[in-house]
Amino acid sequence: MEKIGPVNALYPTPTTLVGALVNGKPNFITIAHIGIMTMNHISLGIHKSHYTNAGIKENQIFSVCLPSEDLMVETDYCGIMTGKKTDKAAIFDVFYGELEKAPMIRECPICMECRLERIVDFEAHDVLVGDVVQTHVNPAVLQDGKVDIASVKPLLFDMASKHYWALGESIGLAWREGKKLKKKLQ
Amino acid sequence: MEKIGPVNALYPTPTTLVGALVNGKPNFITIAHIGIMTMNHISLGIHKSHYTNAGIKENQIFSVCLPSEDLMVETDYCGIMTGKKTDKAAIFDVFYGELEKAPMIRECPICMECRLERIVDFEAHDVLVGDVVQTHVNPAVLQDGKVDIASVKPLLFDMASKHYWALGESIGLAWREGKKLKKKLQ
Repeated sequence: MEKIGPVNALYPTPTTLVGALVNGKPNFITIAHIGIMTMNHISLGIHKSHYTNAGIKENQIFSVCLPSEDLMVETDYCGIMTGKKTDKAAIFDVFYGELEKAPMIRECPICMECRLERIVDFEAHDVLVGDVVQTHVNPAVLQDGKVDIASVKPLLFDMASKHYWALGESIGLAWREGKKLKKKLQ
Repeated sequence: MEKIGPVNALYPTPTTLVGALVNGKPNFITIAHIGIMTMNHISLGIHKSHYTNAGIKENQIFSVCLPSEDLMVETDYCGIMTGKKTDKAAIFDVFYGELEKAPMIRECPICMECRLERIVDFEAHDVLVGDVVQTHVNPAVLQDGKVDIASVKPLLFDMASKHYWALGESIGLAWREGKKLKKKLQ
């Protein structure tokens, strides 16, 4: 093994479009520094300099939308441009759900409405923790009432390459594959 | 859009093998509920019932190793078995780095040594936040000194399908693809 210094190599992660009302207007920011904390709590690591944070703190509500590969250009655009100067919501068909203040993107196959549960504070980053309240899904990516991730075609992000990556094939069943080894070792 | 209730659909995530000394012995647990909080802070959402948590709290040190597809069976095994009853470290070639108390797996292409920075407390889960101190990489997955994620072949996890998934192809460059749209809209 070679030491390469303290490099965070915990990639790829799904790239998301995070929606919030900022100064009363819908805005979206591209975030791939996401996390899963419990079955229904998710997190976003956002630098404090960003325009969106104030809107999320004010309304205590936000959305997390998952773009598919087909939305790569629009998603990257929302990561390049700032809501301070650009109306990024103008490029999407925006809709609202039960929380009313969580703008979501109809072009994304999945959108989650979240209540801000807490903020984990770091020197330069707000880690915004969301409690998922409702999930809106394009019926085209549902199979037997569940999200079919192959149909979602999530846009994965890797920091080392600075590339977006596609999802590959299903290769095995969790809580099942390991049973072969369990039997063998018994 | 169809409402499917409060479903966390923030997948896929890279499956990890988290290493810690528990009662002085190396142990590994499979965790896919990971997160990125800042450039060098990563998180693990672990149910409080697990054996590993006490070891991490005691030593304030742990490792996060990324298995490749080839380690799917061993990785799943570490998710099925509990360290209370099974010596899971026995199936791996275990090594230690500079923190001395973070057991790592030589078969994994990437292992990160972490100091426990804080614990974010939930009702049934500990969210363990790690500050990445050193990253050990198999030279076979390095390209120009950086991690080549295609060579890593990370084992991705999706909760809806309960399947492991492979990484697909690189499809575009971040902070670049969106410039096309920026030009078009100007």
